Amino acid sequence: MSAAEPFAAIRFPTSGWRALVLDQRRLPWAEIVDEVTTWEAMALAIGDMRVRGAPAIGVAAAYGMALAAHSAPPATSAFITHMERAAAGLTATRPTAVNLAWAAGACLSHARSVAPLGPDERAESCLAFARALHEADVASCRRIGELGAALLPDEGTVLTHCNAGALATGGYGTALGLLRAARAMGKRHRVLASETRPYLQGARLTAWELSRDGFDVSIVCDNMIGHLLAKGQIACAVVGADRVARNGDVANKIGTYGLACLARLHDVPLYVAAPLSTVDRDVSDGDAIPIEQRSAREVVELDLPGGSVRIAPDGVGALHPAFDVTPARLVTALVTERGVASPLNDASLAALFGG
Amino acid sequence: MSAAEPFAAIRFPTSGWRALVLDQRRLPWAEIVDEVTTWEAMALAIGDMRVRGAPAIGVAAAYGMALAAHSAPPATSAFITHMERAAAGLTATRPTAVNLAWAAGACLSHARSVAPLGPDERAESCLAFARALHEADVASCRRIGELGAALLPDEGTVLTHCNAGALATGGYGTALGLLRAARAMGKRHRVLASETRPYLQGARLTAWELSRDGFDVSIVCDNMIGHLLAKGQIACAVVGADRVARNGDVANKIGTYGLACLARLHDVPLYVAAPLSTVDRDVSDGDAIPIEQRSAREVVELDLPGGSVRIAPDGVGALHPAFDVTPARLVTALVTERGVASPLNDASLAALFGG
Repeated sequence: MSAAEPFAAIRFPTSGWRALVLDQRRLPWAEIVDEVTTWEAMALAIGDMRVRGAPAIGVAAAYGMALAAHSAPPATSAFITHMERAAAGLTATRPTAVNLAWAAGACLSHARSVAPLGPDERAESCLAFARALHEADVASCRRIGELGAALLPDEGTVLTHCNAGALATGGYGTALGLLRAARAMGKRHRVLASETRPYLQGARLTAWELSRDGFDVSIVCDNMIGHLLAKGQIACAVVGADRVARNGDVANKIGTYGLACLARLHDVPLYVAAPLSTVDRDVSDGDAIPIEQRSAREVVELDLPGGSVRIAPDGVGALHPAFDVTPARLVTALVTERGVASPLNDASLAALFGG
Repeated sequence: MSAAEPFAAIRFPTSGWRALVLDQRRLPWAEIVDEVTTWEAMALAIGDMRVRGAPAIGVAAAYGMALAAHSAPPATSAFITHMERAAAGLTATRPTAVNLAWAAGACLSHARSVAPLGPDERAESCLAFARALHEADVASCRRIGELGAALLPDEGTVLTHCNAGALATGGYGTALGLLRAARAMGKRHRVLASETRPYLQGARLTAWELSRDGFDVSIVCDNMIGHLLAKGQIACAVVGADRVARNGDVANKIGTYGLACLARLHDVPLYVAAPLSTVDRDVSDGDAIPIEQRSAREVVELDLPGGSVRIAPDGVGALHPAFDVTPARLVTALVTERGVASPLNDASLAALFGG
């Protein structure tokens, strides 16, 4: 699977200054591709979760920066100011996944380095940089898949939460990359996708992506995980990450922490798969990772093909922390493109960065 | 709150041989009351979850038995055969909650004892028995509320899962009865209702019932519980029960076990509130409690006012264990109408039955 495949979360065709974003809010009901031609529109697409998943929004931000370069004023200093504003605007859309800030920052540095060039040349260079970042993400996913697949049992049921697949990355996926690579190695798994309320990434996206790819996948409600673990029905769990602190604490989709506690209690391994761009070495531990609080509306209303349906009584609100933090000690192994950190801690993580 | 109040889950008016069942599948969108005139129709209403909640389906079964008595053939032996068939049919609708079998069994015993009477007289007697069972359930709930309210802190946030309220009982509620009684004692709680996929008892029913009753209630997704516990945002949890084994193991709505594990891990008390009719002394421990497996359709499709909407891709199935078992050791206290068992075990539970 690559960015060129039909269900790429995001791609940038070779002609025309536009990114094509698959609207993940509409899956599995419809495959609607939005044309995004400005960085502001890309920021909106990230903020409203048309594109989501830590690595994918990093790629989206990179293409957003390319679009910003294309529409920037000609003067060098005005170009830089413009690109700084775009980087800040893209980064502000979602606070938890660090890949977003990382990608926007890398693109901004590159933009600064090419600022003296002519408008067309520097825009092309920013686009080439974004494409390289995208390709590197897919390559990372493939390597993560290879390294992580070796950890999985030869068969059995693998639980995954949220969607850390091709839809959440430049392509191939992190957690789902492990399953793809394991299948390529001849391993055979049944996959349980926890539905992942409120956005239903598991029921809508992981099930869509994996069933389309020929996997044996079934859905479970988030609240069934404890029971299934107690019944010995889950061999291991694999998830992605939105940000990993320097000590290995993992911020990921809400529900991951509960899953991690329950997996440990039942002696079931939990593997976290993420590119090194997800590691934030500026953050010492999970307590310092900002947890995005999203709108209560996303909990009490379902956005369905026929429109929004309120599932709760009028006047009743909801809490909506969109992520949680899993302490490193509950993670059996962190799988990155540079190797596996297990046990996961400051030292094993630092080793992946070369000490 | 009593069975006579506007939102009684089930009631049997003083005129006419008919039970009125509030269709809980339609809440909070509409308050539709179905008229049920035969035991077969009552069995259907229980099976399709128009009426649900362990004590409430016990009451429903009792009224179903009264309806059976009303339509029974005149001869004594034919009456008994008819009532046996009705009891078996009502009991077969849902396997986990023992109140159903308990109520149907009690009504059958009563029917046998009045079988020699004339058709009208024995039917009236069966109805009076059902009404008495209903009233006893409400009285039990009120007593459970009083005993349990004393355990709750004076203020703070209380988490509840599923719906163990007036809608789940003859009236007043078990877990929600604790909150009602606590309020009457001057305690003030914020309530978090976990939405309880797939039927959404928390988001649809508990939120409806409590907001209507003036409580400060908000919804959380089932997968947020671990995070909220870790953040110290939950003072205690209260739930009902569908069946309690002789050793105190508790079968309750799917998700209760995960909640119980997470509550214990974070040193947060978990109170289970249930009438003694929920205790099955014929079952030694939770492993022997049958766990109802319901249709995958109820997970992958949502029944909404505009019709059913599939949230998963076509062809993808789901697991749907409707209940799970929480070991007695994870329950801080079981609150019954005859007292509180804490710690919960064979001995403390036996003591409530008089040893």
